[in-house]
Amino acid sequence: MIYDHRMSSPNPLARLCLHTITTKPWSTEECISRYSAAGVEGITFWRYNLEGRSPSAVGRQAREAGLEVVSLCRGGFFPGRTSIERQAAVDENRRCIEEARELGAPHIVLVCGAVPGQALAESRKQIAEGIAAVLPEAEAAGVKLAIEPLHPMYADDRSAVNTMSQANEICDVLGSPAMVGIAADVYHIWWDPELEAQIQQTAEAKRLFAFHLCDWKTPTTDFLNDRGLMGEGCIPISQISRWVDATGYSGMREIEIFSNRYWAMDQAEWLSRIVQSYQSLYSSRA
Amino acid sequence: MIYDHRMSSPNPLARLCLHTITTKPWSTEECISRYSAAGVEGITFWRYNLEGRSPSAVGRQAREAGLEVVSLCRGGFFPGRTSIERQAAVDENRRCIEEARELGAPHIVLVCGAVPGQALAESRKQIAEGIAAVLPEAEAAGVKLAIEPLHPMYADDRSAVNTMSQANEICDVLGSPAMVGIAADVYHIWWDPELEAQIQQTAEAKRLFAFHLCDWKTPTTDFLNDRGLMGEGCIPISQISRWVDATGYSGMREIEIFSNRYWAMDQAEWLSRIVQSYQSLYSSRA
Repeated sequence: MIYDHRMSSPNPLARLCLHTITTKPWSTEECISRYSAAGVEGITFWRYNLEGRSPSAVGRQAREAGLEVVSLCRGGFFPGRTSIERQAAVDENRRCIEEARELGAPHIVLVCGAVPGQALAESRKQIAEGIAAVLPEAEAAGVKLAIEPLHPMYADDRSAVNTMSQANEICDVLGSPAMVGIAADVYHIWWDPELEAQIQQTAEAKRLFAFHLCDWKTPTTDFLNDRGLMGEGCIPISQISRWVDATGYSGMREIEIFSNRYWAMDQAEWLSRIVQSYQSLYSSRA
Repeated sequence: MIYDHRMSSPNPLARLCLHTITTKPWSTEECISRYSAAGVEGITFWRYNLEGRSPSAVGRQAREAGLEVVSLCRGGFFPGRTSIERQAAVDENRRCIEEARELGAPHIVLVCGAVPGQALAESRKQIAEGIAAVLPEAEAAGVKLAIEPLHPMYADDRSAVNTMSQANEICDVLGSPAMVGIAADVYHIWWDPELEAQIQQTAEAKRLFAFHLCDWKTPTTDFLNDRGLMGEGCIPISQISRWVDATGYSGMREIEIFSNRYWAMDQAEWLSRIVQSYQSLYSSRA
């Protein structure tokens, strides 16, 4: 029997997944080949990756390159001023679910939406109604729905779901534990004093579907596109990762970084820095 | 007896207070004379207004112009990496309390502070310790301390106190109901699903010391200095005002707007727009 040295040193890139938007300048095909070559294990596609392409062909291409298709970003944006707007959102989410099925993605991420000036409680009601409306299609397709709580600074027009607690409440209301869960992104939830308890509660309800990583820079100069690489900001990523690991979560750790600064870099160099950052965070504990 | 028409139409500017930083280009003396001439009832000074001046003379000048001195902004920033830094913060807060006493301000506003990368729970512990350290001076001076919860987007380096609930917890720990309370600013707390209950709890504990107003613009383009005039954003100000009024709060409604855009305007025109906005919000209910 040949000694396998990997047995004594676990793969330092285990469970590393990248969101394609992290390397936005790259095409769908470049993301697949570059991630695969770098030893990344999973890929989360954004819907723009599928434009002009067959989702099933993209999914096959990723799997043939050794990548696990982790999810599709993103559905959501359910609230609207009128029933026509809300119906259009439901229709769009049904298309997203169908794309995810063809792609072979086990879940879609929901950025739930908000309407400036509309009461947040009303928007949350519309979000629950919107998810309920697409649930039959999700079940039929075998595609789960992951509510992503967004930071309260996005409560005006991106999401009325701003804490893990609120996301859990919507999941409870919908009562479909197998189909509706939560995507926990450290950028949005790191400040929450209830975070540890909420991570536990989410996992106990078997609805921790995804774990997203980036960092919060000081100062942050853009509301959307100035996120940091793990280690260059103030988010206690190791601490939060320990809480997530302690629940038994064994899914991917997904890197999702919106950054005008990093998108302006050579993307091969940027990918190399991401891999290094991930290794230094996780290599000691697989 | 002469008929006083004011009896039938309550002063539409009742309880209107301005923070001097709202008209930052104006000198201390201009703020006093302009606010007074516009019919504003109260003034909250910022510490830069006192530089090179006698606080007691500034306070006297404001009162002689018919303005109530509402508070002094700001103390706080208690957390630090070292005990030397934390002691420097305590000393600075003692100076702030002494200035407020001389000025005749009944309370100072605390922006509590945070240290990037330091655990928020540790920063909150240091905040409670810092407030406890200056409490004797505050009591001796008769100057109350108003903790201002800051929006979670400031949790990196401005405040580890990000909800009314956390501020109430610190007040409970300190156990000085007459001296330590809360400044509720709609900009920071509007998104909080517990807001109505927290306002009630704060008022029941007799610690709702201040109520600050501005608005949240969509989009907001600067993390600090792009706040909106009431009515141009998404904050449900009328709703929150009703919750505050329902507690019996009868203090000032303080306008505090950081805005590069408005600071670049003619400040007399800007003041006029603030007054109009306040009137349209509150004239029907004094």
